[in-house]
Amino acid sequence: MSGSTFGNLFKITTWGESHGTGVGVVIDGCPAGLPLCEEDIQNYLNRRKPGQSKFSTPRKEDDTVVIQSGIFKGKTTGTPISMAVYNKNQRSQDYSEIASYYRPGHADYTFDQKYGFRDYRGGGRSSARETIGRVAGGAVAAKLLDMLGIHFLTYVKSIGPIAIHPSRFDASEIDKHPLRMPDATAALEAQNYLDNCMKSQNSSGGIVECIIKGVPAGIGEPVFRKLDSELAKAVFSIGAVKGFEIGDGFEAARATGLENNDSFYYDKEGKICKKTNHAGGILGGISDGSDIILRAAFKPTPSISAAQETISRDGKNITVQVKGRHDPVIVPRAVVVVEAMAALTLADLMLENIGTRTDTVLDYYKKQS
Amino acid sequence: MSGSTFGNLFKITTWGESHGTGVGVVIDGCPAGLPLCEEDIQNYLNRRKPGQSKFSTPRKEDDTVVIQSGIFKGKTTGTPISMAVYNKNQRSQDYSEIASYYRPGHADYTFDQKYGFRDYRGGGRSSARETIGRVAGGAVAAKLLDMLGIHFLTYVKSIGPIAIHPSRFDASEIDKHPLRMPDATAALEAQNYLDNCMKSQNSSGGIVECIIKGVPAGIGEPVFRKLDSELAKAVFSIGAVKGFEIGDGFEAARATGLENNDSFYYDKEGKICKKTNHAGGILGGISDGSDIILRAAFKPTPSISAAQETISRDGKNITVQVKGRHDPVIVPRAVVVVEAMAALTLADLMLENIGTRTDTVLDYYKKQS
Amino acid sequence: MSGSTFGNLFKITTWGESHGTGVGVVIDGCPAGLPLCEEDIQNYLNRRKPGQSKFSTPRKEDDTVVIQSGIFKGKTTGTPISMAVYNKNQRSQDYSEIASYYRPGHADYTFDQKYGFRDYRGGGRSSARETIGRVAGGAVAAKLLDMLGIHFLTYVKSIGPIAIHPSRFDASEIDKHPLRMPDATAALEAQNYLDNCMKSQNSSGGIVECIIKGVPAGIGEPVFRKLDSELAKAVFSIGAVKGFEIGDGFEAARATGLENNDSFYYDKEGKICKKTNHAGGILGGISDGSDIILRAAFKPTPSISAAQETISRDGKNITVQVKGRHDPVIVPRAVVVVEAMAALTLADLMLENIGTRTDTVLDYYKKQS
Amino acid sequence: MSGSTFGNLFKITTWGESHGTGVGVVIDGCPAGLPLCEEDIQNYLNRRKPGQSKFSTPRKEDDTVVIQSGIFKGKTTGTPISMAVYNKNQRSQDYSEIASYYRPGHADYTFDQKYGFRDYRGGGRSSARETIGRVAGGAVAAKLLDMLGIHFLTYVKSIGPIAIHPSRFDASEIDKHPLRMPDATAALEAQNYLDNCMKSQNSSGGIVECIIKGVPAGIGEPVFRKLDSELAKAVFSIGAVKGFEIGDGFEAARATGLENNDSFYYDKEGKICKKTNHAGGILGGISDGSDIILRAAFKPTPSISAAQETISRDGKNITVQVKGRHDPVIVPRAVVVVEAMAALTLADLMLENIGTRTDTVLDYYKKQS
Repeated sequence: MSGSTFGNLFKITTWGESHGTGVGVVIDGCPAGLPLCEEDIQNYLNRRKPGQSKFSTPRKEDDTVVIQSGIFKGKTTGTPISMAVYNKNQRSQDYSEIASYYRPGHADYTFDQKYGFRDYRGGGRSSARETIGRVAGGAVAAKLLDMLGIHFLTYVKSIGPIAIHPSRFDASEIDKHPLRMPDATAALEAQNYLDNCMKSQNSSGGIVECIIKGVPAGIGEPVFRKLDSELAKAVFSIGAVKGFEIGDGFEAARATGLENNDSFYYDKEGKICKKTNHAGGILGGISDGSDIILRAAFKPTPSISAAQETISRDGKNITVQVKGRHDPVIVPRAVVVVEAMAALTLADLMLENIGTRTDTVLDYYKKQS
Repeated sequence: MSGSTFGNLFKITTWGESHGTGVGVVIDGCPAGLPLCEEDIQNYLNRRKPGQSKFSTPRKEDDTVVIQSGIFKGKTTGTPISMAVYNKNQRSQDYSEIASYYRPGHADYTFDQKYGFRDYRGGGRSSARETIGRVAGGAVAAKLLDMLGIHFLTYVKSIGPIAIHPSRFDASEIDKHPLRMPDATAALEAQNYLDNCMKSQNSSGGIVECIIKGVPAGIGEPVFRKLDSELAKAVFSIGAVKGFEIGDGFEAARATGLENNDSFYYDKEGKICKKTNHAGGILGGISDGSDIILRAAFKPTPSISAAQETISRDGKNITVQVKGRHDPVIVPRAVVVVEAMAALTLADLMLENIGTRTDTVLDYYKKQS
Repeated sequence: MSGSTFGNLFKITTWGESHGTGVGVVIDGCPAGLPLCEEDIQNYLNRRKPGQSKFSTPRKEDDTVVIQSGIFKGKTTGTPISMAVYNKNQRSQDYSEIASYYRPGHADYTFDQKYGFRDYRGGGRSSARETIGRVAGGAVAAKLLDMLGIHFLTYVKSIGPIAIHPSRFDASEIDKHPLRMPDATAALEAQNYLDNCMKSQNSSGGIVECIIKGVPAGIGEPVFRKLDSELAKAVFSIGAVKGFEIGDGFEAARATGLENNDSFYYDKEGKICKKTNHAGGILGGISDGSDIILRAAFKPTPSISAAQETISRDGKNITVQVKGRHDPVIVPRAVVVVEAMAALTLADLMLENIGTRTDTVLDYYKKQS
Repeated sequence: MSGSTFGNLFKITTWGESHGTGVGVVIDGCPAGLPLCEEDIQNYLNRRKPGQSKFSTPRKEDDTVVIQSGIFKGKTTGTPISMAVYNKNQRSQDYSEIASYYRPGHADYTFDQKYGFRDYRGGGRSSARETIGRVAGGAVAAKLLDMLGIHFLTYVKSIGPIAIHPSRFDASEIDKHPLRMPDATAALEAQNYLDNCMKSQNSSGGIVECIIKGVPAGIGEPVFRKLDSELAKAVFSIGAVKGFEIGDGFEAARATGLENNDSFYYDKEGKICKKTNHAGGILGGISDGSDIILRAAFKPTPSISAAQETISRDGKNITVQVKGRHDPVIVPRAVVVVEAMAALTLADLMLENIGTRTDTVLDYYKKQS
């Protein structure tokens, strides 16, 4: 297997399994001189921490990050930043039973098919704990982007059939409720919906939306490394994502050109603006200076306590009830994971963009000498 | 700029602009010994050829491919396969006007922001003619996959508000009608819809669906090179794509775990099967042996003749009518592009998968010696 | 097979065989706005042209380059630059015999072992004609570097036992004699030596030296992408190279620390200088502002007319005399190939270096907005 | 900065500085099912451990490796293998002085030029401790290669002017003497030579030679990923390497074609053999089934106690004596680092080679299904 590395110039490599020693990430390519401390990372990680409400797994995961390299006197040195979160609260016995069968909706079967065997404890490498490395890496990317004036607004757009309503949109609500919806009314409805799901030992899907503000025009490489193409890859690499959109997304397929095209205009200061943003801030794979808007559809948590039909590894059709401590819905904790992947993608493409023009390259080296 | 290369082991690099000498592709990493001739490529290219009906641009593009390297005695040698389609029917004068302004919905503005200037003839590098290289590359990948028993069924699922209906699904209809819908009734309705679009100098979006049959379980690398993640990147790198789904896609976000989980069972021959395929053939980023199902949402053709507001490069708010020969809808010609990108992705990950297990590696080298 | 792509941000992909349609290269990642025309490339290619003296093959190769994309109004657009040299003077019959046996010192045997068969015409992909793509790509890199004040001095240091003498070093001699030695006396001696080689149907090895002037301090990435490491890879990828050195090279292994360490000092203007340059301009994998000095050892041309023992493909021990038009020595024509590979390496690492510091990244984006 | 990742399919990423928390490596792409335990790694690491004799630094470094992921029930799972060696014996005070000046022969100056500042404690990222990650990674690659019948014979060929003599070559001597020379007489002479170096507060360079036995023909990708090209990069990325050779190396530049070409012949069993191995086992960048022979020239340890002229960061020409605990010669401890880099390179290219032929790919997938 390979594929545990993401990015070109701002690159992360994650490692670790749910019930091993821990999980971690190595960032290679973060520019030198960025102020960085463990608290920057921890604040990000706390946003994905379970155990904050009844809607996330009651497992206590301290998820305390340690930085092991790449920082000197409070700044990044330009060398690899190794970070780890060591596991403290494993209860491997919870998972011993699942060694013998394939859980529906999980990667148990496909890992066995690919590798011949698997670390079945808590999903092993396919566990959601793998995202800890992504979030730690994304925290560093986000810090760099913050200095560039780029900010993220990421939240839950819908849970099952319950969606936020544009007229009630209030960003300040996001951190007030564990479901992270920017609409207090929708959050309450979603809470009721989830209560019913839990009563029936069931789970729910949902949609995360991410708006990136302050991205300058010109980011993204045409053809295969388009900004939207790389964001699609980044977000789709999060387990449980089944759909991805930029701007109007699938709605654009039902629209006409007159409806969908965003008209340019010069405002009173002569700044180039767009009257609408159906494109979600990307034209021809390159940012146009508007807000970048993306959405990811997450399937329902596959781990449910209700009885399900499946197969054992030794050839039998069986019925199982998956035990363990699981989230009835993924999206509230996935918000920060989507944001982290978007930040990593953007930081990488923004570094790549710097060498795009001959005059810029000449300027840079004249200034240095 | 970079980003004109796609894939790792089965790798393509495309080049060329709409109104330059031509467009082409270099494939590096195609296994040696694959029977291949220009006709294999031409058949694929002909599926994206314009001028086949009133619903595609009346430009005549012969799009005759030449293979320039990598074939000896009718077989691939394992060395790079260079292919080109030289331009014959450019009418640069059609486009000279657009040098002075930014067309809504196009990459004119973002290219200028990124590079400082642009080849404005016919969209230059951001023209849909760039996809010729992808389709030529995809034809080779598809030939290899065909020998592995893997086949594609790709078609138009919807145009504007008109979608095919599952009860009328008939794959044999796809090639009978220029709109490439597997539903004769929907095709007629879509034809009427497009006629109206054209009368109002407007255009329409649409959805392409691709089903891949015969993919063995185990393909795709967990974490960042998941099969779905790489397919998302591949398909989203096609200009005009705004949404992407695997299996139930955004519907999964509205579903519950009990609805969405696919139960495994052993059939009478002891083969592992799934009762449903909400997952679209991928679990944990790895193929599960079921059909791979993916969908791409395309925005309406941004080039429309209706009057639109936009800006000139020299600082004025203006109204334009984009002249030229354009498709009122992209999806019928995009069908083969989606298929090509999916084939390239799959061929690449299938080569990468071969070295996944120690016993396989040992077997291979024992056999060789 | 893969591996026909070199570089990360300034990237080339070469294609083509000795006796196919032609050979070519696609450059992806050249910054936009670089003035470039075919003459820039042709001047470089002419330096590797055969037929210029009795010491190179009497084959006439026009090697006329055509640029097929990536240039608009005399400048690079930032999109891929595709260039090709189409073959005109193939005499495939010369090579038909070698299909049946394995030439000593050539890649015939290893290609067959790897791929199962080979394009045996003129060495196919392993022919020295493959370097045309590298030289065309290197010409563009060198043009960019020239604008940055970086220049190359590349020459033949020795042919067989005949080496240039430091006391007679005269750079103006390099282009005066077909052997490209910066020492007229050594060039005459080498000429006599080669005459004798040719009389005995034999060939000679030699050494190419390259000095790169004007490289700023700070280029190269520590650890695996050190400047010397990437130069080693680049130069060793040229067929027939068997040794590579930076600075004192193998002599450093015989020296002591006191002899080998280069002392720093401030000159009268306060500029940082080194008293010696045993290091060849690279410390810890990063340029130190001194001249970069590298050397490559080339083995003798393996194609010789003298009788040699070898094997046929059908199982016999045989004696062969390799016919065809061959160079008795490789290094004079390899001078520009070494320079091209060094230029490509440096351009790539210089683009990568721009995003190394946070303050630089901030400056760049502040300036843009 | 980037460049801390090496390899494509068998990939390592190293992290850590001399005096930080520790150093480590993440391996991504090791095939699943390889038996592996910490002892396998520790045995390799012990070969680079200092403090074994008076010829290496008296620093005690326990260098105890911990495996943190990727192993389950004693076998690799195919997921990333994270390994770390935590620092225990730092004496940062030893190095505080060097913060103020640039040591000759070290990367102090170039790191400052590149990044604006540096972690000056013990060389930071440019310390030889960085090679611990490489050796840990190489141990895993070597274990895989061992199962494929591939073995390494690596030793010190020369120290300063003292070289082993072919007539006295005895591989069993390598591990008997701390200088790791396969020639007891030369080892004694080198010991005397080093004693004198140390008396004069000086150091010595040396050459490491590595012979790889059992590599099948066909490994290496033509053009830019030639086996010799990748080995050159791998070995040249080790700090202090200034020269690299394959087979006859620089001697080949002085030879004639008749001398240098290796004749093929069929032996009595019909096996293809070569009468000589001037090529060092590689033809056209691809292994030919003979022993792979490579050599690396290491410069003398730049850290010496003798007085040296250099500069302070604040603008003065000064004289310094570098304190600390240093090796008077690098090569004995570098033996295992060269071997590790060669093993990593070979494992990577051998995995890549598996998908080279269409028939092999077909066979693999037929067998799986």
